Amino acid sequence: MGKIGKQTWRFEKPIYINATGTTVGPLESQGPLKDSFDKWFDKLHCDEKNWEAAERKLLQEAITICLNKGNQTTKNIDIFLAGDLLNQTVTSNFVAREIQIPFLGLFGACSTSMESLALGAQLIDSGYAQTALCGVSSHNGAAERQFRYPTEYGGPTVKTKTFTVTGAGVALLSQKTSHVIVKEAIIGKVVDWGIGDPNNMGTAMAPAAADTIYTFFQDTGYNPQDFDMIVTGDLSSVGSPILKQLLSEKKLDISKNHHDCGLMIYRPNQPVSAGGSGCACSAVVTYGHLVKQLTKGTIKRVLVVATGALLNPTVIMQKETIPCIAHGVVLEAAGGQNS
Amino acid sequence: MGKIGKQTWRFEKPIYINATGTTVGPLESQGPLKDSFDKWFDKLHCDEKNWEAAERKLLQEAITICLNKGNQTTKNIDIFLAGDLLNQTVTSNFVAREIQIPFLGLFGACSTSMESLALGAQLIDSGYAQTALCGVSSHNGAAERQFRYPTEYGGPTVKTKTFTVTGAGVALLSQKTSHVIVKEAIIGKVVDWGIGDPNNMGTAMAPAAADTIYTFFQDTGYNPQDFDMIVTGDLSSVGSPILKQLLSEKKLDISKNHHDCGLMIYRPNQPVSAGGSGCACSAVVTYGHLVKQLTKGTIKRVLVVATGALLNPTVIMQKETIPCIAHGVVLEAAGGQNS
Repeated sequence: MGKIGKQTWRFEKPIYINATGTTVGPLESQGPLKDSFDKWFDKLHCDEKNWEAAERKLLQEAITICLNKGNQTTKNIDIFLAGDLLNQTVTSNFVAREIQIPFLGLFGACSTSMESLALGAQLIDSGYAQTALCGVSSHNGAAERQFRYPTEYGGPTVKTKTFTVTGAGVALLSQKTSHVIVKEAIIGKVVDWGIGDPNNMGTAMAPAAADTIYTFFQDTGYNPQDFDMIVTGDLSSVGSPILKQLLSEKKLDISKNHHDCGLMIYRPNQPVSAGGSGCACSAVVTYGHLVKQLTKGTIKRVLVVATGALLNPTVIMQKETIPCIAHGVVLEAAGGQNS
Repeated sequence: MGKIGKQTWRFEKPIYINATGTTVGPLESQGPLKDSFDKWFDKLHCDEKNWEAAERKLLQEAITICLNKGNQTTKNIDIFLAGDLLNQTVTSNFVAREIQIPFLGLFGACSTSMESLALGAQLIDSGYAQTALCGVSSHNGAAERQFRYPTEYGGPTVKTKTFTVTGAGVALLSQKTSHVIVKEAIIGKVVDWGIGDPNNMGTAMAPAAADTIYTFFQDTGYNPQDFDMIVTGDLSSVGSPILKQLLSEKKLDISKNHHDCGLMIYRPNQPVSAGGSGCACSAVVTYGHLVKQLTKGTIKRVLVVATGALLNPTVIMQKETIPCIAHGVVLEAAGGQNS
């Protein structure tokens, strides 16, 4: 079927999520979705020497869990699509070295979760792969040091700031029948409304999410009520109301079924300012919580729109703004229509 | 046709390079391939305030030139696949903001040139795009500061070091008949033989190139003599002999037709140590020089293997080594067989 409308892909064959693997850090395992995750670490170092090695362990373990659940070995996987927040997507590179699967490195900041899932499904649909492993990771300590300040400085935070989720989420795709189908995907455009404050990424990303969601409904002819949930990646308590406002100005009402992974993953009283962010935020909520709900049949169809702030600290110091992007994927309970 | 062998893609439809755009900096315009490039800048700043803005200009201008030559506008392009060496692939992100084409951000260090070309051709072959724009960029000043030291420090260099090419290369793909066809592609695995010296990337990358080239010939049944040229991206004078040695140990002799973009782009007496590197190195040599030769028919079939050192300075300081990858693409003169 291929491309429909301006930016949307509809997969001709049923592409299944055969298994997922999710790992998280201490704060995420104290959140309301704890039981959705496969493994959690009590300490942010995950028994490694530094944050970067800890992030690699999170991704590596998520892959091991996913392959075990899917009854697969790395030898049978045709392609590994991955990315992360660290410079040169170094977590993915090192993990790709360990698993020895042909590797496509991706970067879309926190939107990489759905970018990798979309491309993995596309490669299977078109016969370029029979099995694909799609994954992302992020680590609070590594990301904070790289994008802002080392957490050890103990710098003050602001209310609009999001909190990078520590974790990794991985999905195994193939045409082998399972409970969850990857149905459509939408590839976003870069949107930048001039926000230059890295402590307010929810506001920066909301217009990108609005652009992708609006185009998705235009391209497909779906209505928001066709979805049990429309889930954004990490707009937080700051960006979520802006998204709903922007879409309502375009006569699109998603207020009844909108949720944000960054708000779902933590309890309101956890010390995460405006909510969670990072590649792993949308990935662990989708591959942990949402895939479980779709498998049970408690929800039938969900649109996940992962939002990415394409932030570069050097360029921010040069007084440039933050370009943002959002990629979306539709997941359905196998054989199911909307409830 | 899809996947053949372990890692190779063979495109079913003829996917054409309809146009290319190449821009370079001052040193590249003094090299032997000057006349192959579309535009060159006399100063490294390219009339911009900083290196990062200069790199954006190089990529933006290469796109404008490419679209003009291809008689296309951004509105008619279905997908933009791009990446670069700067953290968060920030050059591509900002340029994607300007051109407003659905954007897939990629990272494979200097291998991103062929990663983007391979994926662009794959998306067209499978009906997910009718037109694709594939591009990369790199800038010596921006890359040196980020990966080593600011060039303004005037630090000494070593003979094994490669020199980041300043430039950008872009290709426009579609099924519209033209002179050059994208025939096959191979997606690499990450290979790391334990080199941890960022001043010796030729040695680090040679095993990755050898792995991809060896697998390519296994997958396809081609012989090296089926190719007028087998071109690596940036192995330099240090890595090129290692590649040939590694392949000869596997009974694969590419010594007669191997060339390296990093050695082709500069004269031996230019101050570039072991040769050129960077995403733009393979891109401007391929989209400038090689596409022109294929168009004229002076060569009929070429395998371009872009090599990427997936180097992260933080992780190097943590005493880790350099994971490497190589992605390859076969280009053919339209209707042509090997000469």
